[in-house]
Amino acid sequence: MYLTQGLKRNVQIHGDELATQDGDRARTWRESANRIAQLAGGLRRLGVVDGDRVAVLSLNSDRYFEYFFAVPWAGGVFVPINIRLAPPEITYWLNDSGSKILFVDDNFLEAVKALDGNLETVQDFVYMGDGATPEGMHAYEDLLQEPVPDAERGYEDLAGLFYTGGTTGRSKGVMLSHRNLVSNSYHIHASGSYRPGMRYLHAAPMFHIADGLAVFGVTIIGGSHIFIPGFTPEGCLAALEKHQVTDTLLVPTMMNMLVNHPDVEKHDLSHLISVIYGASPMPESVIRRALDVIPDVKFTHAYGQTECAPLSTLNGPDSHVLDGPNAGLFKSAGRAAVGVDVRIFDEDDNEVAPGVVGEICVRGPNVMLGYWNLPELTEETLRGGWMHSGDGGYMNENGYVYIVDRMKDMIITGGENVYSAEVENALYQHDCVVEAAVIGVPDEKWGEHVHAIVRLYDGEAVDEATLIAHCHTLIAGFKCPRGVTFLDEPLPLSGAGKILKTTLRQPYWENQNKSVS
Amino acid sequence: MYLTQGLKRNVQIHGDELATQDGDRARTWRESANRIAQLAGGLRRLGVVDGDRVAVLSLNSDRYFEYFFAVPWAGGVFVPINIRLAPPEITYWLNDSGSKILFVDDNFLEAVKALDGNLETVQDFVYMGDGATPEGMHAYEDLLQEPVPDAERGYEDLAGLFYTGGTTGRSKGVMLSHRNLVSNSYHIHASGSYRPGMRYLHAAPMFHIADGLAVFGVTIIGGSHIFIPGFTPEGCLAALEKHQVTDTLLVPTMMNMLVNHPDVEKHDLSHLISVIYGASPMPESVIRRALDVIPDVKFTHAYGQTECAPLSTLNGPDSHVLDGPNAGLFKSAGRAAVGVDVRIFDEDDNEVAPGVVGEICVRGPNVMLGYWNLPELTEETLRGGWMHSGDGGYMNENGYVYIVDRMKDMIITGGENVYSAEVENALYQHDCVVEAAVIGVPDEKWGEHVHAIVRLYDGEAVDEATLIAHCHTLIAGFKCPRGVTFLDEPLPLSGAGKILKTTLRQPYWENQNKSVS
Repeated sequence: MYLTQGLKRNVQIHGDELATQDGDRARTWRESANRIAQLAGGLRRLGVVDGDRVAVLSLNSDRYFEYFFAVPWAGGVFVPINIRLAPPEITYWLNDSGSKILFVDDNFLEAVKALDGNLETVQDFVYMGDGATPEGMHAYEDLLQEPVPDAERGYEDLAGLFYTGGTTGRSKGVMLSHRNLVSNSYHIHASGSYRPGMRYLHAAPMFHIADGLAVFGVTIIGGSHIFIPGFTPEGCLAALEKHQVTDTLLVPTMMNMLVNHPDVEKHDLSHLISVIYGASPMPESVIRRALDVIPDVKFTHAYGQTECAPLSTLNGPDSHVLDGPNAGLFKSAGRAAVGVDVRIFDEDDNEVAPGVVGEICVRGPNVMLGYWNLPELTEETLRGGWMHSGDGGYMNENGYVYIVDRMKDMIITGGENVYSAEVENALYQHDCVVEAAVIGVPDEKWGEHVHAIVRLYDGEAVDEATLIAHCHTLIAGFKCPRGVTFLDEPLPLSGAGKILKTTLRQPYWENQNKSVS
Repeated sequence: MYLTQGLKRNVQIHGDELATQDGDRARTWRESANRIAQLAGGLRRLGVVDGDRVAVLSLNSDRYFEYFFAVPWAGGVFVPINIRLAPPEITYWLNDSGSKILFVDDNFLEAVKALDGNLETVQDFVYMGDGATPEGMHAYEDLLQEPVPDAERGYEDLAGLFYTGGTTGRSKGVMLSHRNLVSNSYHIHASGSYRPGMRYLHAAPMFHIADGLAVFGVTIIGGSHIFIPGFTPEGCLAALEKHQVTDTLLVPTMMNMLVNHPDVEKHDLSHLISVIYGASPMPESVIRRALDVIPDVKFTHAYGQTECAPLSTLNGPDSHVLDGPNAGLFKSAGRAAVGVDVRIFDEDDNEVAPGVVGEICVRGPNVMLGYWNLPELTEETLRGGWMHSGDGGYMNENGYVYIVDRMKDMIITGGENVYSAEVENALYQHDCVVEAAVIGVPDEKWGEHVHAIVRLYDGEAVDEATLIAHCHTLIAGFKCPRGVTFLDEPLPLSGAGKILKTTLRQPYWENQNKSVS
């Protein structure tokens, strides 16, 4: 069980078939694996030894794919960086992970320059673009020299650090092993959603573990990879048609833009077999529209967490129907994936009866090794051998999971997780703010958006725009409040002294039919 | 990764669906899992503690299936006994494994009585039949009392001992872990041969790891199990039709009898989707006949070893065609299964070039922990991290493996492995025999049959029938020679002093088109 196994099997049995297609650049498995072994050689020459972290900040590309295999081939640990972070957050991820090398494409050269002087461990930069190599960086293609043998780390060895938002206001690195990522691939294979010979479009960002499912799962089963730099409905539609794509993964926001695009029916999407979506609830109207415009496509809802590498439950095509006994079943997050134990626990970690709300807990070979350098949080999250997701939900008599709340106080906006505490921390750093609570409020386009409720110190004054601008200096744009409500009186508190967010949310949600899938 | 995981997932998501069907006796997953937890409770009360071995000698049944899950549920290790063994061999397996308990059905009560006094470790016998419980045995249904919690051993923990013929003349216990058996299931899932909702007929004997693939793989993916006691073409055809079977596994001898049965086309086999075959080469005439009488069925050839739990390579439906570019490809053993590394090594364990014959070697999470109590043989077989199969073969440019010889000097007759050395040992125990060599010779019905070439001590005389009868007192009937050739002169030897079996085989095979798949 090691990540590069599938790569080598593909060279053996699909050597002359398509591995990667990026624009007009196509490579076979033999070519791709050879480049990966050469890139691993380059990493070794830069000093990478077993267990060293190697980060990347880039839009999607075939080189990003090669990075995902060259790093373990060289014995290293990959650290994909969220492309929407603010500079202090990028700095934190790189320093916290102790990354030795940073890969960067043209789109983030300026962002990386801005980090100058703050990076504690990065020694080398690799420029992934095709332009002139910036001073002080290595050109990607120059690193491809003498290939080295595969380090063949595997099983429990650390393969990657995937950072996720932190309730403490700081991101935390989720440690995923080779076994975690390979097992997770097997779990999706057994669902029947993936198949040998599939042609997968990487439209969702590759830094995210949801796309990682495909980077590894499609490789292991022997499919081909198509890349677009990032999602636009036009670019996605064009690639689906041109490259006869059979499979892709979209977050609901992308799906919404795609199926409601005026040109959707002008494109030949006849090769498309299966679309997996995840990361947040899909509004019913979007599903209805999708079933209408691409009726032959099989839809699957995948629910999971970075900590589960990421798959916990799946809701398959049988549930995506508008009539018959299964009508409406798409509102569920689905049932335990093959190989994964899913249970609903009460506060004392006892399993609750069907229909009773509790915390969704997960166990399996896909569950993370733990949080990087956070042993106490790891122990707490994995207590009793179960990954405590922080998501509230219930399970019906037939094993269908319904998510009803996010116990960790998280907002999902446009497919991105935003932890309220992180935004509140930013607000609290403003001198005028005495009390702050951040909630998600309904948003037609993004599902929810971030909203702040703030009380200022007596006699202080600051306006909405200033407070939002203050946040932008500290955290990623998508995490910043879109609006601020100012209260004159103290925020409502629970008996235990916690701010009563349910009370704060109520006026925004009371007329909403919040169908959380 | 533990064997009972799929069982519990099925209770959660398929609780009211069919788990097992044995004759007219049908049970849901909820019922089946409850019985398994109760049977595990019975095993615990009989004193089973973690790691204890529990053996079974029985034809196929739903109770055999329950045994396969109750033993790990109780923390034990299953030891399925070959139903065709002679009493001394059964005794050896039971004593060597140190089995504490033996499950036995009506068909083997007499055989077990004959072991009386020779068993060193068996303390309890469990009678699996529905008749009167023999004295000194526990009734199966009486053991089903208070359920116990699942021991949840998993990963590297020993799950089962599967005995295989030994080149040293003794069987050896292959130690398979939970991870071995679960990984192997994932590997077949990824091939697309298995699918949720499948209805699998256990026609091949359940003691064999080839059927174990289905016991665990079908359970994990959420299918149903149909049992017949053993293979007869009539019984198999009737069950395929009556229970709307979608999947089964047959050895070539069974397939031959099935597709050439006069009534094959009178049965409704329209539900049959996929047939896997393995264990020995399939004659081309049988494949042609199969494609003719059940043309809608997808055929897959699985090649493997007990040591690989058992899957190494697969040759899928695309290769089972009579026309086009893939015609004839069914003569190959196929390509590495998903998750499995397969290479051809020379005598120094270096990989050979495509087309060059060497030893087929296998690596993966499915490869055994080792041989029970045989550390030196384990180390030799698993040297360098690769399982050395003892099978000779080559791989073509596209990764297709062709088996050309059995380096371990093994005969496959009717799907059963017979190690020449074991038969030769039996012959040598006759006082008149000075030299013996056992080879496989062509057989229309069984593929090969066992033939002995013998030289007697000067002045001694014994006839063919007596020598064969002598073997029957020592080894299983299927291992005994069908014929004996007596030589007056010493058997031909190689320079190293080994009997030249190639020379002995030559007259039998020279006019045969030995197409070993």
